[in-house]
Amino acid sequence: MTLATETLNQSSQAACEKLVCKECGTTYKLEAKHVCEECFGPLEVSYNYDRLRQQVSRETIEAGPNSIWRYRQFLPLLSDNVIDVGTGMTPLLKANRLARQLGIKNLYIKNDAVNMPTLSFKDRVVSVALSRARELGFSTVSCASTGNLANSTAAIAAHAGLDCCVFIPADLEAGKVLGTLIYNPTLMAVKGNYDQVNRLCSEVANTYGWGFVNINLRPYYSEGSKTLGYEVAEQLGWQLPDHVVAPLASGSLYTKIYKGFQEFIKVGLVEDKSVRFSGAQAEGCSPIASAFREGRDFIAPVKPNTIAKSIAIGNPADGVYALDLAHKTNGNIESVTDPEIIDGIKLLAETEGIFTETAGGTTIAVLKKLVEAGKIDPDETTVAYITGNGLKTQEAVQGYVGEPLTIDANLESFERAMERARTLDRLEWQQVLV
Amino acid sequence: MTLATETLNQSSQAACEKLVCKECGTTYKLEAKHVCEECFGPLEVSYNYDRLRQQVSRETIEAGPNSIWRYRQFLPLLSDNVIDVGTGMTPLLKANRLARQLGIKNLYIKNDAVNMPTLSFKDRVVSVALSRARELGFSTVSCASTGNLANSTAAIAAHAGLDCCVFIPADLEAGKVLGTLIYNPTLMAVKGNYDQVNRLCSEVANTYGWGFVNINLRPYYSEGSKTLGYEVAEQLGWQLPDHVVAPLASGSLYTKIYKGFQEFIKVGLVEDKSVRFSGAQAEGCSPIASAFREGRDFIAPVKPNTIAKSIAIGNPADGVYALDLAHKTNGNIESVTDPEIIDGIKLLAETEGIFTETAGGTTIAVLKKLVEAGKIDPDETTVAYITGNGLKTQEAVQGYVGEPLTIDANLESFERAMERARTLDRLEWQQVLV
Repeated sequence: MTLATETLNQSSQAACEKLVCKECGTTYKLEAKHVCEECFGPLEVSYNYDRLRQQVSRETIEAGPNSIWRYRQFLPLLSDNVIDVGTGMTPLLKANRLARQLGIKNLYIKNDAVNMPTLSFKDRVVSVALSRARELGFSTVSCASTGNLANSTAAIAAHAGLDCCVFIPADLEAGKVLGTLIYNPTLMAVKGNYDQVNRLCSEVANTYGWGFVNINLRPYYSEGSKTLGYEVAEQLGWQLPDHVVAPLASGSLYTKIYKGFQEFIKVGLVEDKSVRFSGAQAEGCSPIASAFREGRDFIAPVKPNTIAKSIAIGNPADGVYALDLAHKTNGNIESVTDPEIIDGIKLLAETEGIFTETAGGTTIAVLKKLVEAGKIDPDETTVAYITGNGLKTQEAVQGYVGEPLTIDANLESFERAMERARTLDRLEWQQVLV
Repeated sequence: MTLATETLNQSSQAACEKLVCKECGTTYKLEAKHVCEECFGPLEVSYNYDRLRQQVSRETIEAGPNSIWRYRQFLPLLSDNVIDVGTGMTPLLKANRLARQLGIKNLYIKNDAVNMPTLSFKDRVVSVALSRARELGFSTVSCASTGNLANSTAAIAAHAGLDCCVFIPADLEAGKVLGTLIYNPTLMAVKGNYDQVNRLCSEVANTYGWGFVNINLRPYYSEGSKTLGYEVAEQLGWQLPDHVVAPLASGSLYTKIYKGFQEFIKVGLVEDKSVRFSGAQAEGCSPIASAFREGRDFIAPVKPNTIAKSIAIGNPADGVYALDLAHKTNGNIESVTDPEIIDGIKLLAETEGIFTETAGGTTIAVLKKLVEAGKIDPDETTVAYITGNGLKTQEAVQGYVGEPLTIDANLESFERAMERARTLDRLEWQQVLV
């Protein structure tokens, strides 16, 4: 599927230049390829930063669209014909009440639980991948997904009018299944875990001429996560935070936030500064956290068993790079139990009014654990990345959030219920006669 | 509860001046009051537009925060101490595929299905109401809700650290109940429909010193919907559309979008222009559409029976104003059946990748009906307002979106499923050997 990318290179100024093997440095043209032919290492897009430095400034970015496409020149597209569904530029919320509860001072939540269109950070990577898929001439797009990616691929393919076939483990949460089917793709529910789905998809990718966003299009796809770095830097007033906490599934998101920061330093958009990178895993699927804890430099694959299904990748493609990043930035990688994840979801909701899915609960629980262990300094400007919405994983908290007080439609019934609530200490209310 | 609002008037430049009765013009101070003491008409906030004209320009707005608070001066707050949870500035999406399907040329979707923090336009009105509640000294806030408002009030109260007690009909969708409980408010599930809930809340509001966002704080609350007008005008490049289609529940949203447009004209931010206002109701609760169809100038209350619960208000507070607006702008008010609503949800998802709740399905179905009836000109720049997220009303479409194809984790099982899918005409796929 090496369609003449050269002919598509309408914008002679595109800063992306080639694919480079992260292991041996072999270079390739910008085609649908993700594995080095020499050493089987992963391929990554490289850019001409001199050109970028000339092309972009804070002002040109601020004048751009209110979406990830304001960072267009940092993304691996050759033409200007991108799929812009409004993805990105999600709020960075100063989380004072959560910070106080945890005992730290400068906490921000980057809230991709309200990302457009499908309420997770995956809309970023899919917007980039499908834009590139279209440039490369694919008419059918696909993915192996733990749920959020399926939602996003199906939705953005629908918007772009691309045929779509997505693969998920058969045991996903109802909201993620319905939240894919609604866009009317072909949906394959595979009896197995994500790693098995992923292996099957690699076979399909090798056999059919489809654009798999996280397989043969992975070098383009993964670049979309850099925008989570760019946006935080811009939203903090063109500076970097001291510490970030992000969930780890494949490890790609985590390492690409770092790449985003480094690129902004490289082209002079922010001042150079060291940022500590900490990562969050669910104990029921924590191959990277285990390696970190045990001081290993390799990942031992595990079989996932956790409610945090969206990050349940037992054999993480970028695990070693995530491990390396935590070490070299003086960060930490921690894991938390399923009950701690539920508490994390509730804590964020009750203090900040943000309802996140299990992955976000994992991030908040790990944030708490790191603060309690003194591994986050109270004075550090810390950003926690919330990557998905709680409405997609309602099963996880059902049974842990209490019940409504059912009453009749009259004042007396209400007042009886208030008495009950007061007894239950559900509300510190004041009865004030007006 | 007439706390000295004067003492809170820290910002001497606030453009909001008083409450004015929409019926008899009697004026009141900016207190927690929503009904005229003279004639029982509804109260509305009025502004000093000369002052606004001096204070704001396109440039000052563009330099403001990426939320509704960029329109701060147009909102009824006296201090600068607002609750900013990143609400607003949701994407305005050019909907080319949906437009083509409908046979019109310039269609936009204003997508509040991804509004922050709780995925509906209610986050706008609640952000304003709770900011004002805090100025007025309320420590407990409340609402009567069909679901979205409960989500929003509970979430933003949690963020702001206010005590919260919300009232809903007992038969709401599971996602809306859980999506409220997660923030840990006191939640009263009232055995009755919304209109009964609302009557009970009026009694509670008269007895307890609570700030009910849509009762005693309603004049402030409802102003938040103006931002849906401002944002569309700004996002269209500082011009107004030709036609808007919005859902009608109480009628407040619809009339406030109009007020927003008129204010922008008044202060010189956009050129004067007539905009047609069309409204959407579900047939199972269509008191305003019935009045429009029958040429009445009064609303006959109805008992709701529709899947579109978030807009199922049988006795709409602003119904007559909505009716009047449709007439005077040469718009229309239409209703659609529950099956048409489901088709509307699916149509928007399949063409544009946006999953909306039943209210949004109603809007899309009415949009379709109006186009087919020649009541929207194909050349008009039309904006359809999508006000909430489909993940909250999953019950409505479950059973209408098909099922995944369950397969084993091997290529053979996948290929058998593809044959089945091809037979079912689920995908026009090309098998291309690489």
